[in-house]
Amino acid sequence: MSNWPRVPGIAYGGDYNPEQWPESTWTEDIALMREAGVSMVTVGVFSWALLERREGEFDFGWLDRVFDLLHEAGIAVDLATATASPPPWFSRAYPDTLPVTKEGHRLWPGSRQAYCPSSTRYRQAATNLARALAQRYGQHPALVMWHINNEYGCHVPQCYCDGSAAAFRNWLQARYHDVEALNAAWGTAFWSQHYTAFDEILPPRSTPTWANPTQQLDWYRFASDELLACFTSERDAIHEVTPDIPITTNFMGAFKPVNYFDWAPHEDVVSNDHYLLGADPSPHVQLAMSADLVRAAGHGAPWILMEHSTSAVNWQPRNLAKQPGQLARNSLQHVARGADAVCFFQWRASRAGAEKFHSGMVPHAGTDTKVWREVVELGKHLKSLGEVAGSRVQAEVAILFDWNAWWAVELDSHPSTDVQYLTIVRDYYESLWRQGVTIDFARPDDDLSAYKLVVVPALYLVTDQAAAAIGDYVRAGGHLLCTFFSGIVDENDALRLGGYPGAFRDLLGVKVEEFFPLAEGEVVQLSDDARGTVWTEALHPAGANVVATYVDGPLAGWPAVTAHHAGDGLGHYVTTRLDQDSLARLIARCCAEAGVRPPIIAASGIEVVRRRGDGASYLFVINHTQQEADVQAVGEELLTGRAVTDSLRLPAGGVAVVRETH
Amino acid sequence: MSNWPRVPGIAYGGDYNPEQWPESTWTEDIALMREAGVSMVTVGVFSWALLERREGEFDFGWLDRVFDLLHEAGIAVDLATATASPPPWFSRAYPDTLPVTKEGHRLWPGSRQAYCPSSTRYRQAATNLARALAQRYGQHPALVMWHINNEYGCHVPQCYCDGSAAAFRNWLQARYHDVEALNAAWGTAFWSQHYTAFDEILPPRSTPTWANPTQQLDWYRFASDELLACFTSERDAIHEVTPDIPITTNFMGAFKPVNYFDWAPHEDVVSNDHYLLGADPSPHVQLAMSADLVRAAGHGAPWILMEHSTSAVNWQPRNLAKQPGQLARNSLQHVARGADAVCFFQWRASRAGAEKFHSGMVPHAGTDTKVWREVVELGKHLKSLGEVAGSRVQAEVAILFDWNAWWAVELDSHPSTDVQYLTIVRDYYESLWRQGVTIDFARPDDDLSAYKLVVVPALYLVTDQAAAAIGDYVRAGGHLLCTFFSGIVDENDALRLGGYPGAFRDLLGVKVEEFFPLAEGEVVQLSDDARGTVWTEALHPAGANVVATYVDGPLAGWPAVTAHHAGDGLGHYVTTRLDQDSLARLIARCCAEAGVRPPIIAASGIEVVRRRGDGASYLFVINHTQQEADVQAVGEELLTGRAVTDSLRLPAGGVAVVRETH
Amino acid sequence: MSNWPRVPGIAYGGDYNPEQWPESTWTEDIALMREAGVSMVTVGVFSWALLERREGEFDFGWLDRVFDLLHEAGIAVDLATATASPPPWFSRAYPDTLPVTKEGHRLWPGSRQAYCPSSTRYRQAATNLARALAQRYGQHPALVMWHINNEYGCHVPQCYCDGSAAAFRNWLQARYHDVEALNAAWGTAFWSQHYTAFDEILPPRSTPTWANPTQQLDWYRFASDELLACFTSERDAIHEVTPDIPITTNFMGAFKPVNYFDWAPHEDVVSNDHYLLGADPSPHVQLAMSADLVRAAGHGAPWILMEHSTSAVNWQPRNLAKQPGQLARNSLQHVARGADAVCFFQWRASRAGAEKFHSGMVPHAGTDTKVWREVVELGKHLKSLGEVAGSRVQAEVAILFDWNAWWAVELDSHPSTDVQYLTIVRDYYESLWRQGVTIDFARPDDDLSAYKLVVVPALYLVTDQAAAAIGDYVRAGGHLLCTFFSGIVDENDALRLGGYPGAFRDLLGVKVEEFFPLAEGEVVQLSDDARGTVWTEALHPAGANVVATYVDGPLAGWPAVTAHHAGDGLGHYVTTRLDQDSLARLIARCCAEAGVRPPIIAASGIEVVRRRGDGASYLFVINHTQQEADVQAVGEELLTGRAVTDSLRLPAGGVAVVRETH
Repeated sequence: MSNWPRVPGIAYGGDYNPEQWPESTWTEDIALMREAGVSMVTVGVFSWALLERREGEFDFGWLDRVFDLLHEAGIAVDLATATASPPPWFSRAYPDTLPVTKEGHRLWPGSRQAYCPSSTRYRQAATNLARALAQRYGQHPALVMWHINNEYGCHVPQCYCDGSAAAFRNWLQARYHDVEALNAAWGTAFWSQHYTAFDEILPPRSTPTWANPTQQLDWYRFASDELLACFTSERDAIHEVTPDIPITTNFMGAFKPVNYFDWAPHEDVVSNDHYLLGADPSPHVQLAMSADLVRAAGHGAPWILMEHSTSAVNWQPRNLAKQPGQLARNSLQHVARGADAVCFFQWRASRAGAEKFHSGMVPHAGTDTKVWREVVELGKHLKSLGEVAGSRVQAEVAILFDWNAWWAVELDSHPSTDVQYLTIVRDYYESLWRQGVTIDFARPDDDLSAYKLVVVPALYLVTDQAAAAIGDYVRAGGHLLCTFFSGIVDENDALRLGGYPGAFRDLLGVKVEEFFPLAEGEVVQLSDDARGTVWTEALHPAGANVVATYVDGPLAGWPAVTAHHAGDGLGHYVTTRLDQDSLARLIARCCAEAGVRPPIIAASGIEVVRRRGDGASYLFVINHTQQEADVQAVGEELLTGRAVTDSLRLPAGGVAVVRETH
Repeated sequence: MSNWPRVPGIAYGGDYNPEQWPESTWTEDIALMREAGVSMVTVGVFSWALLERREGEFDFGWLDRVFDLLHEAGIAVDLATATASPPPWFSRAYPDTLPVTKEGHRLWPGSRQAYCPSSTRYRQAATNLARALAQRYGQHPALVMWHINNEYGCHVPQCYCDGSAAAFRNWLQARYHDVEALNAAWGTAFWSQHYTAFDEILPPRSTPTWANPTQQLDWYRFASDELLACFTSERDAIHEVTPDIPITTNFMGAFKPVNYFDWAPHEDVVSNDHYLLGADPSPHVQLAMSADLVRAAGHGAPWILMEHSTSAVNWQPRNLAKQPGQLARNSLQHVARGADAVCFFQWRASRAGAEKFHSGMVPHAGTDTKVWREVVELGKHLKSLGEVAGSRVQAEVAILFDWNAWWAVELDSHPSTDVQYLTIVRDYYESLWRQGVTIDFARPDDDLSAYKLVVVPALYLVTDQAAAAIGDYVRAGGHLLCTFFSGIVDENDALRLGGYPGAFRDLLGVKVEEFFPLAEGEVVQLSDDARGTVWTEALHPAGANVVATYVDGPLAGWPAVTAHHAGDGLGHYVTTRLDQDSLARLIARCCAEAGVRPPIIAASGIEVVRRRGDGASYLFVINHTQQEADVQAVGEELLTGRAVTDSLRLPAGGVAVVRETH
Repeated sequence: MSNWPRVPGIAYGGDYNPEQWPESTWTEDIALMREAGVSMVTVGVFSWALLERREGEFDFGWLDRVFDLLHEAGIAVDLATATASPPPWFSRAYPDTLPVTKEGHRLWPGSRQAYCPSSTRYRQAATNLARALAQRYGQHPALVMWHINNEYGCHVPQCYCDGSAAAFRNWLQARYHDVEALNAAWGTAFWSQHYTAFDEILPPRSTPTWANPTQQLDWYRFASDELLACFTSERDAIHEVTPDIPITTNFMGAFKPVNYFDWAPHEDVVSNDHYLLGADPSPHVQLAMSADLVRAAGHGAPWILMEHSTSAVNWQPRNLAKQPGQLARNSLQHVARGADAVCFFQWRASRAGAEKFHSGMVPHAGTDTKVWREVVELGKHLKSLGEVAGSRVQAEVAILFDWNAWWAVELDSHPSTDVQYLTIVRDYYESLWRQGVTIDFARPDDDLSAYKLVVVPALYLVTDQAAAAIGDYVRAGGHLLCTFFSGIVDENDALRLGGYPGAFRDLLGVKVEEFFPLAEGEVVQLSDDARGTVWTEALHPAGANVVATYVDGPLAGWPAVTAHHAGDGLGHYVTTRLDQDSLARLIARCCAEAGVRPPIIAASGIEVVRRRGDGASYLFVINHTQQEADVQAVGEELLTGRAVTDSLRLPAGGVAVVRETH
């Protein structure tokens, strides 16, 4: 169910925390919101301590007034359940709800999110508060959405307390039923780890050396599930009271501890928080990747950009402010990639607390500022894009992404610590992005038949079922581009024997006898002028053609890249981390062979994405360069209302959205 | 009260720990002390375990003999209260006196200083010992000073145990009276941190993410106050017994955890410990800064150099030995900047224990050594400088320094971790030092009218009162040089809204709408050939003249440095961290405008400081270069007794002290 | 007693963990072992959980079948006592057997080795299991050796729990008898550390700053002794049952926490585990050093290479695979240096668990692989070397090595953290290696008279007795090469006063008045074109000749290297860390003066070692270069069976073993 858009067009707003300001400020807030075109705000995200001042004693007075003020101004409310941070009285009354680290430290209140996700006491209290809010505001006409908790797992994704240990054992019992099945799955014959009963099992707490890998993997799964159980507990209580109000919680892009692909089906609509990373050399590519990932979580449906920033944040070592125009460029890039709502953290920059140097829609310096002027302008832009809402992003290429593979591939005691999942995914994502190709992220066991090309980066762990699905896709004519350290283990992190890459050996027509990771900083040359780092493999072709070989390094003369016809399809295998230029050439060739084309041909640094709705298509064009650029398009540019007859001139840093005429 | 100098002239000596040596060594010690001209030694700093061998059982026999031996030799005793390290029996009997880290680890005995500063049990035991010593030695003719504890806070500035938590709550209750005042001051509406009672409040222990900033700031204040309370408890017990013997404790220069400006008024005389840092590119400048800071703590009165080293120390990664002549140069640099006593840690280099590789006045290798010869020579030098004692350093420039600002500006979740308080203070200090200008450090709310120029580096936190005092100073004709990230928050770390630099916006005639911190290693060019790093700001002049603009970087074309006439004064504002050359030019201009002049004009690397006493003035000239240098002066050179008619030739590394004839 | 070689010739095999595989695999295992020429396998290293499934309930069925299968195939069994990792049920039943870190964290089960070495409960349980195994398999004809525990101390060399604290106190009481002796030895007069009773003493747990150095040193000694007590407890139980079966445990080369020199006499035969370090620029030199060290532990007797790898391991950041030929080169290098058995961890590469990416004799990819082919070839090589077994390595040079010196020299609060024991030992070892000189490691108080040259690297701690033995050696005509920071303290880490290097001052004819450690990265020039880093010293010759002086740096003009005739001998002293070229020249001169010669003259990178047995001598020649090389030799090359008449041509990376004809 994605019935959320009770706010017409592209919703616009942000987190609104009026309780941090005197009520005298609220009137100004409303007036400024109207000036900016704000249509929806999120209220109450961290208000537990002010909503329930003592156990069971609720104080809704101030929130009632906020609701009424907003409603009078025609601004919809996305009501947060306020459960992301229990109040001090709660932690003091129930100290065993506090989280415990891997080393056995208790984490104390004083910041936020100081709760153990497996604590039944916490879950109960949170659910009670959510229910009370639903009962109080469920019928309020301003209410359009529920926002449960906040950024689940952000600071405490895992708790190692005794209560969590007991919950872990229950989870394992449900998964394995009897302990010998667990012994088999975990390979406990190794290192004298055989369990005689579930009672003996612990979380992977601090231990003399590497904990059992499958124990660690199951711990990731368990911890993600525990957070989800917190969510569904609140959700169920609310759904009972307000079955028709959509429910969401805000994701954080590629956040390792929570499996958003598993989670999204439990929401009515998917939301995302995204912040630019100052240290990223191309943060707009990272933005695109985050947006595409969250869109994939919702199976392509429009989603909500629940948080981003008008300018600098406060939590990076050096928090870079945004350049003029960057606010709009970032926001519309999200819309281009499927967002139907653009919200900021937060409405008014704080005066106190740990986030006071986080930018807001209303800066410390007031409204005679770049930020405020751009906030107002963005409001107008979004208004003019109303018709785009509901349309969907079009993509011909899929990158397979999987939290289980991510968790497993980065476990300890592996051939090389230089193999980092997101780095490899990003390599391929960015190379496609630079060639103007729009991608979808997909689950490994999805039906892939709609894609012309599927990229498989470091899918170290793959289930038999997913491996079969990928094989079916290729043999039916699909094109595959698969990297090293894929197909290595089954779902229990047990090795697929007989030569690497176990699950894909036949499909790719190769057999690898040994990994040859490279030393730190080592670079090897390939026969096609490519360069490789991080990894090489002693590969024997078993049907595949050799596309490139190693010229030097530990495997001089051995194959580096291969291609294999399987059924009606074609599978490329890459045994090293290619440099960007070489990867661009490889991907260009794979795209050409697969018939993949960008939405339109544009200069380097011009991002083009097409959203397609009922009978209409919208071309988003974003100029990330410092030069103006011309782009071929025909239709109406919606931000300016101007007709585009055959080409569009985009200023440096500019954005255009063309309703296309075909 | 600064009635300490019962030792005539410049006192000379060091820590004397005879209990670590057989008594047979003591006779040799006394003979060598006389050879070196030692006039005062500090005894008993770490002797608790040997003075109170079991609870309440004192053994003063060995100390009696030490007192008598010293007295017979005419050497005065600065008696330490021996409370800096409780004995093993104490920790074993009272384990709850052991300190606890932020993460909840207990720290164990085995090194030194293993006590919780808030422990009433510890304070009581320490005070009892201090009282017992006063009763025993209060009338001994050798006693000239009390040295309470040692380097308070050196290893355990803060303890997070439950006892400390209770003490923190008491401290907060005394500060805020009711919990709603605390809620307002701490901004607890943020992140659901509202307290319903003081009982709920904790130290900023390990917590999922950033603790409330004001909680952290108050914790710094509390912790400094707790150490002070340890001091005053001992002091009061001693003052009852020996009201006329001055009391001190040894500071450690710019030591963040203890607010020495608050602390000094509780002492009779201020002392300092200083050690060169091998990794510092100009350790003699750092020495000068430490000396000036401790002099400021005592409001300009002469102070005691309680510890420094004859050569290498033992606690740095690489402990560099001193070059020939460096011992004298360092010692006399302290005297130049107001020290009336020169003491070393320690008399005899240890044979055992963690400090055995710390140099002493008597080295491991004995007296046929560079160190011993220089120790003896220094004794003669200090004797010839006797008349200098009691004179005061003259300065026309003040740098505002504030522990509260320091604590606050380095809290987490700020715009840039590259903003480090001491680095910015040092930039300005060193630039003035290199131009030969003597400075005083001053408190922000001091009467500044005596200074021609006041420098305000990164005074992030400033009270309304201090901001007003600074404004008064300027409007009455003073010159101000203020850096970025000043005047940002009030005493509760709450933002001053309406544009930065809040408290100084009007005074400086500027309004900043947004900070633009620079990326790591990023350098921007200014219009006057200066270069900036770390920080830039989007500044609008509001009355100020633009002195320089940014040529590139995120704010190309925006003002970088401004000047504003306010009342009869002039205020410069600098929005970036300038490179050393550019800063030198700016400071030269500000000095010229303000009429600031060095004591005399000397070549680069020649440090010149004037002390002025009753009808006499003393020019200290220290050659930090590798070349000899000529300096203009008229009078008598005291170290050699030679007349100086118009100029003085100083060898490389040499020192001269001229009683000036005017 | 070194009666172990019940397996004829050079034993060949590895760790065999059949319990990790279905029994169906076992038959294939045996067949492959026979193909490879395996003659001995180690069984049961981590089998506790499967051997004792509940307390006191032993399940030997599967192991019985393994024994029988192996015996039928003529493969001998080295039976491990399986005590290196207690089962989960044990840790759950006896949580106080779990180790505790210095900070007070408990370490939990889930990996391996989660036990406190001082736990009597653990020792009892381990000894019971060892006894049960001895009773079960003591008479089995396949049994040839006992392998107690595994890599003692690998992950938990020290435990800081209360039980360990009590054991430490007992150990101290046995060493010092009364507490005042301990106070004197530890120098507790320093920092108020005087103990009134043993009850007050603790392990060096987390403490505010540096713990007492002698406490730390005794803690190292205690911890090594505690592990040894675990070993002897098992050993004694087994010896009672099988007095004639030799007992070993596997060492780990230069492993700091365990004093293998003290330990080896308690074994029947010494074993070693060795793995190449990918980050080492010359890992084969490190291999040689490890082999020579373990040979020294056994006083030169042949030893067992219990573990090494066929290719990559899994525990380094980047695990490099071996190049073709490297497996044989590594293995035979161990044999050259005294190994009479070559075993691998492990037989079959694991399918699950933390070591699944550790190479095995049978790789994941099966037998059609480089690794398997080389395993089979090595089996043939070792068979042809059978006659070498029992012969001994010949050396004319000794390097003094001492765990007590190592522990002490790397304690905290020293002049420079750049002084790392193994680095300095390696400098001298590698320089000798590169000149083709075979060395023995020796204990400082060994009779050194058989050596022509003795090298003393950083022997910071030296007992009076050892200092006297070294002096006797020199005065009787020996040649000595001694580095800086030697002879500094006595066995209690108390300084030898009167000038450095205390214990060797007279012997070397020098007196050092002060250390001048160098800054990070600082390089000084010497008069003989050498360069020094890390360290310099202010040295006065007192009889010694100056060989080289410093040209620059803090001691320009001072002596850097000296030589002194003492009695009939000659002692060189080196006050800095020389670069490799300069050190090579110094060592070449010292070797020439002492009459030291390599076994034969060979090109650089050709390793030559001679083993000498009953009436025969064997020349091992290993080509570590990329070029073929000719080597002078006469006799029979054993790997090929070919006669060598005057010279041998060795391919790049090749190995030859010549039974010499004289």
